[in-house]
Amino acid sequence: MVDIKAISGFPEFLPAEQIVFGQVCEIIRAGFERFGFSPIETPAVERKEILTAKGDFGREIYGLSRLGDEGEDTTDTDLALHFDLTMPLARYVAMHRDKLTFPFRRYQIQKVWRGERAQAGRYREFYQCDIDVVGRGELSVLNDAEIPSVIYHIFREMQIGQFVIRINNRKIVEGYLDHLEIPQASFFDVMRVVDKLDRVGRGQVADELTRKFALKDEIIKEILKIVSVKSSDMAVLNELEAMKVNETFAKGVAELRAVMDCIRLFNVPTDYLQVDLGVVRDLSYYTGTIYETTLTNYSEVGSICSGGRYDGLAGFFAEEALPGVGISIGLTRLVMRLIQAGILKVGAATVAPILVTMINQQEAARYLKVGSLLREAGVPTEVYFGSVSLSEQLRYAHRKGFRIAVIIGKAEIADNNVKLRNLKTGDEVICAEDEVVQQVQRIIA
Amino acid sequence: MVDIKAISGFPEFLPAEQIVFGQVCEIIRAGFERFGFSPIETPAVERKEILTAKGDFGREIYGLSRLGDEGEDTTDTDLALHFDLTMPLARYVAMHRDKLTFPFRRYQIQKVWRGERAQAGRYREFYQCDIDVVGRGELSVLNDAEIPSVIYHIFREMQIGQFVIRINNRKIVEGYLDHLEIPQASFFDVMRVVDKLDRVGRGQVADELTRKFALKDEIIKEILKIVSVKSSDMAVLNELEAMKVNETFAKGVAELRAVMDCIRLFNVPTDYLQVDLGVVRDLSYYTGTIYETTLTNYSEVGSICSGGRYDGLAGFFAEEALPGVGISIGLTRLVMRLIQAGILKVGAATVAPILVTMINQQEAARYLKVGSLLREAGVPTEVYFGSVSLSEQLRYAHRKGFRIAVIIGKAEIADNNVKLRNLKTGDEVICAEDEVVQQVQRIIA
Repeated sequence: MVDIKAISGFPEFLPAEQIVFGQVCEIIRAGFERFGFSPIETPAVERKEILTAKGDFGREIYGLSRLGDEGEDTTDTDLALHFDLTMPLARYVAMHRDKLTFPFRRYQIQKVWRGERAQAGRYREFYQCDIDVVGRGELSVLNDAEIPSVIYHIFREMQIGQFVIRINNRKIVEGYLDHLEIPQASFFDVMRVVDKLDRVGRGQVADELTRKFALKDEIIKEILKIVSVKSSDMAVLNELEAMKVNETFAKGVAELRAVMDCIRLFNVPTDYLQVDLGVVRDLSYYTGTIYETTLTNYSEVGSICSGGRYDGLAGFFAEEALPGVGISIGLTRLVMRLIQAGILKVGAATVAPILVTMINQQEAARYLKVGSLLREAGVPTEVYFGSVSLSEQLRYAHRKGFRIAVIIGKAEIADNNVKLRNLKTGDEVICAEDEVVQQVQRIIA
Repeated sequence: MVDIKAISGFPEFLPAEQIVFGQVCEIIRAGFERFGFSPIETPAVERKEILTAKGDFGREIYGLSRLGDEGEDTTDTDLALHFDLTMPLARYVAMHRDKLTFPFRRYQIQKVWRGERAQAGRYREFYQCDIDVVGRGELSVLNDAEIPSVIYHIFREMQIGQFVIRINNRKIVEGYLDHLEIPQASFFDVMRVVDKLDRVGRGQVADELTRKFALKDEIIKEILKIVSVKSSDMAVLNELEAMKVNETFAKGVAELRAVMDCIRLFNVPTDYLQVDLGVVRDLSYYTGTIYETTLTNYSEVGSICSGGRYDGLAGFFAEEALPGVGISIGLTRLVMRLIQAGILKVGAATVAPILVTMINQQEAARYLKVGSLLREAGVPTEVYFGSVSLSEQLRYAHRKGFRIAVIIGKAEIADNNVKLRNLKTGDEVICAEDEVVQQVQRIIA
């Protein structure tokens, strides 16, 4: 007997949860398409040198090797599973750029893999739902502004309560770190520490900054001050504009102002938006706008969606400017947490509302015909095939969560009728076989 | 600059092709749900011992290894990518059997990976779309009969012309091989050779049987005779019943008769069905019914869907009988071949029918408002953000395949109007901004 224990970090759902997952996924997909993003998929597998082009080895990557007939590793050792959908997009755009139309707007809903150490809530395999716009040469700031409006509409439709899309510009923090005379080579590592502020608190971040970079207390105070700036009142931009720091800082503030001004044109209510200089993201490829989204009443769910602007990413793969901006929803984690928090309700284990029970297998054709009538009318329908008692079939119907059981016993057969039992109320109606579709549609409606 | 050449066997689509792929996938998904199959997904990753429980090392498996910070392989070496969805289903059912409702009917649409040597038309990463029914204890033959009817309805809806679902029972061929005194240990290997009959012809199969198993010419002739039996006329079953071979053979014929009799109840036209003793499948886990489906007018497309009954598969993972029957559509190959054969037409590179062009960025709010009106009415709409000439924006619209361009120039702004250009006919209409939704819906319809 082979051991079948679950593999930590590789989640799987039972059918009822999978149905909820599918519904959320469908809201996202339809939302992306409504804004005119086109679907693509890239292979799960890329060359290692593509995935590591940016030098990000922080996130651990799963490499592939082919098991030979002897169970030994053999060739194909230059391949690995993608850890996000942004590096593959950059490769895809560079590779197919002469066949694509720019600005290239695409969405991508796929699994990604990260070889992290197992710990609660960390997944090694999970879905990301990404939208990105990639330009050839230049890319209007209107794109940076449209992304949050797509996210706003999608999360509104999911009915997951109040949320805030927090927006920053990386140049602001970089300008400020430069102003504090922190060496440029350390910017990214300092930001990685600062990125943990919400999770671990000021004390621990300060300790880590002291230990890793030997920064003076005053400098750390200054860093923590700037990354603590956050407000839904756009007056905060006036204050930032008034600060004379340096050119990079001023450029970042100007870009942020342009993005926030444009977002208003998309009619996203201001209380769903926040300027937050603490949003620094732990990925090194962002160069301008950065986004992070959090649920107001469920802070334990953490960031549900994040992204930003990357002007140089495709530069590893093509000798021309292909600036991009995008955002990613971490779907697996989002659905898991929303189910745990009770925001998403898990219901039936079937997508079909109707179960046709089968009392008499000799009359199988009759039961199958009713199934066909309902399916042809667009009503998903299962016909029960096991030779067990009606009460056991009804138990099956209740466990799976069907809404209506069709019952055809001796009396019904004699009169060419069918009986419909509403499994929630217990109400029953008897109708002629050829009226089954209307009756079912009436009960469902 | 990092080299970005494609990886052989790992296909990816351009957006217009991806949209077609998505449409086909949606027909399959909806078809599966119409028959009351519930969705599940299993991780792409399983323990190697799960995947190799059946001992099938013929299909090569990709193992995983985590790249450490030094780019070296480290732990997690017991994990591998699944090569089909049937072994993972057996594991899933055994693992969750106390939380599932039996008979367990599920569909699963996911990528699988096979570490095959690269060759034309062989994919190392591809989608499979599976339905299976797994019983606890016993499983009615009605399930074996329903599977082809699901397939029939789905392929009809795809409008891919005439096709034939070829059905066999493995016991027939096994019984016959036994009758020919071929040792039982060689059954599977002999069937693997015979499985190539359609592709390589009688001569090559005969040669291989001689070489590998030292079979006499007479025996080979007998084998080729039995596996060449095929007919859409069910009278063929009478002939098989009349043959006195042995108990296994007779059992296989009786099971096949039961399945074919039941299929009639599902109203699948007989010319879509064929008894074909040449369908032996190269997987060792099938124990009864076997299916294979081919397009009548496009034999070069090969088998588009196959599967069968496996009574013992979950036995590797659970100490109880969990018999199953199912079928799998090789979606990636199917779509690729149907596009190549011209059966599926590749159209627009966008799912949105409408592009709102933007002549005057100062008036961005106006263009965005029109976009919002259309989206709120359920019409996917893209707003163009680049600052290029109208003619260049229209070129973009034509290249991506939008149906209507919304144009708002000086005159339209002055009168609060919008101009709609039908991009196929070139016809234009001017209407009030607040009538844009009705006008667009009229043109699209």
